[in-house]
Amino acid sequence: MGNRRWLLPESIEDVLPREAEHIETLRRRLLDEFSSYGYDLVMPPMLEFVESLLPGNRSDLDLRTFKLVDQLSGRSMGVRADITPQAARIDAHMLNRFGVTRLCYCGSVLHTLPTSFDATREPVQIGAELYGHSGLEADIEIVGLLASALRLCDIQTVRLDFGHAAIFNALIESTGLVAELTQEVFGALQGKDIPALRELLASVAEPLRSALLALPDLQGDQRVLAEAAQRLPALPAITSALSDLQRMAHSLGDLPIGFDLADLRSYNYHTGVVMAAYCAGSASALALGGRYDGLGAAYGRGRPAAGFSMDLREVARLSPNGKRRAGVLVPWPENDAVHAEVRRLRTQGERVVFALPGHEGSWQESDCDRALVLRANEWIVEPLKDN
Amino acid sequence: MGNRRWLLPESIEDVLPREAEHIETLRRRLLDEFSSYGYDLVMPPMLEFVESLLPGNRSDLDLRTFKLVDQLSGRSMGVRADITPQAARIDAHMLNRFGVTRLCYCGSVLHTLPTSFDATREPVQIGAELYGHSGLEADIEIVGLLASALRLCDIQTVRLDFGHAAIFNALIESTGLVAELTQEVFGALQGKDIPALRELLASVAEPLRSALLALPDLQGDQRVLAEAAQRLPALPAITSALSDLQRMAHSLGDLPIGFDLADLRSYNYHTGVVMAAYCAGSASALALGGRYDGLGAAYGRGRPAAGFSMDLREVARLSPNGKRRAGVLVPWPENDAVHAEVRRLRTQGERVVFALPGHEGSWQESDCDRALVLRANEWIVEPLKDN
Repeated sequence: MGNRRWLLPESIEDVLPREAEHIETLRRRLLDEFSSYGYDLVMPPMLEFVESLLPGNRSDLDLRTFKLVDQLSGRSMGVRADITPQAARIDAHMLNRFGVTRLCYCGSVLHTLPTSFDATREPVQIGAELYGHSGLEADIEIVGLLASALRLCDIQTVRLDFGHAAIFNALIESTGLVAELTQEVFGALQGKDIPALRELLASVAEPLRSALLALPDLQGDQRVLAEAAQRLPALPAITSALSDLQRMAHSLGDLPIGFDLADLRSYNYHTGVVMAAYCAGSASALALGGRYDGLGAAYGRGRPAAGFSMDLREVARLSPNGKRRAGVLVPWPENDAVHAEVRRLRTQGERVVFALPGHEGSWQESDCDRALVLRANEWIVEPLKDN
Repeated sequence: MGNRRWLLPESIEDVLPREAEHIETLRRRLLDEFSSYGYDLVMPPMLEFVESLLPGNRSDLDLRTFKLVDQLSGRSMGVRADITPQAARIDAHMLNRFGVTRLCYCGSVLHTLPTSFDATREPVQIGAELYGHSGLEADIEIVGLLASALRLCDIQTVRLDFGHAAIFNALIESTGLVAELTQEVFGALQGKDIPALRELLASVAEPLRSALLALPDLQGDQRVLAEAAQRLPALPAITSALSDLQRMAHSLGDLPIGFDLADLRSYNYHTGVVMAAYCAGSASALALGGRYDGLGAAYGRGRPAAGFSMDLREVARLSPNGKRRAGVLVPWPENDAVHAEVRRLRTQGERVVFALPGHEGSWQESDCDRALVLRANEWIVEPLKDN
């Protein structure tokens, strides 16, 4: 035929039993942890109108979003590439609570292209978001929840890096550069492309020029904050941002903390503290998060917001996978006695697998290590052996 | 603006906290039950090449599938509208086990159009499939698992209806009708459109004509099987199908069983016993299932197969939703004593919610009914009261 129907598109994968069970275990563990902190689960849809999925000017998210035509309305829909804007929409419009709202979610998102050569186009995004509180307490709670989530998955956090979106925003606003140039400066900073940055900032007056050029250097341990206070102009937003970062560092005690003041989130909806968790076994950040106070306004109600999210499949890859629970093989039941035994074993939490007639030779495939057998008129569970 | 970004497309919904928690609870309960029967969880992707998602000649599934262009290959991809073919592909090709393989899954599927006026376009399909066994034991195990799943969700099964795809297939093959006409007869039977059926079968010889016209009548309790034996020709496939249904009925004991010999699954990949579970609170079938031995061949390895699936959101709608677990409100921690108390409460399984500074008045929104308070130098949990 030449038509190999079992081939999957590039960067799209099946998750097979062993990995799927691990992912499901971690999913439950994380959602339970979020719930124990008061975060309510929501399940936004896979599909929305394009303008709902893409509030604001976010061209990278736009390029990453699959577009479809809605046969019912004729309008353009997108398959979500990010759940955070959906959670913000639910907080702003659907729940419309007055006070602090805590939401969490876990679901597939799709990307038109993988974000890196070894990335999947179907991450399972899991995250938590806190709405309605502009104080640093919200950021601190979110970072604490992230650290606790990683600990629960037995993932070693190598470094928790912090930045602050207000620093770049305050500097760039003061320069009075046009939006297009701003976007280019943003891109050059993201890529730490110093020659391009020098060129783009040629016309910018001091001390803003030196300050923007200094950002890529401001990376390292807590001494970065002191250095930043010296090298950056004492604009109120910058002073306040540095003080936020100081307080954040203080609240986290024994976690391995770093700073990167040129770290700007790729989806650029962030407005305050941003963070990235780097973990043993992965070169790129496992979890990303931060404050994004502007997003709710697109949905009719601006609300302070802070949160984080990560790819659950990547979490599962970095988290040690436990031993599988082995099952008990049972002959196809001919009588009520077997049925009763099976019920009893399952109630005890056992995995009980029927050996259907004719398949006696293939039990090794079914992850069973014991069998229910009749010995001297009594049903007992015996170890299974190859022979 | 006129641009109301919070509006969702028709038949697409957010699942908000109370319902989401209920769905998550049932998801876990069902997947755990499947696992205790030896069914391995798999997570097939949301996206595949169109020809992988649509094996065989299934025009209704084709119309229901959203199509996208793969930027990496230029080929046409679809967003899955049904997980069953994906599970068959995994069994046939990815796992490639020799003996019986039991798989289960739970995930969103998307439909271009709702299947009925009140249906969602994003069901959460949950199901279990058994591969590699052609005997009726597999069908019996699958029906038993379905019945047990519905019981676990406290859903009352009003009727479990059985049909058998081989009856229609044997009759229509004997007529020698061309494929197009077959498709039309199929459609007329599905819609129980007797006048159309009479016209389509005008040229068909007896006893096949009367037999096909009799199918819509063959609906009801176990007496239907005796009636069928009289009104249908004694083709070997029909005799064997009626005997299968008799054995199936016998094995199910006290369940409310019915028969509908004109019930043909809409995706028409079924080849043997088919079933539909009707439950209190819903006019349409909650769960559909049956035998589909042909599907694996499209993926390079024909394997006997039987299974069922249902929409978890519909399951949740029909299943009584328990009371929500109320939380404990805690002042934003100023000291280690509060932190220690919070850890202790969470370890006990409590949901513990911080009252962030400035939001003291909005605790009613957070589903808390108690608070952690300092009384005579000791932290205690007290009921919360409106005042």
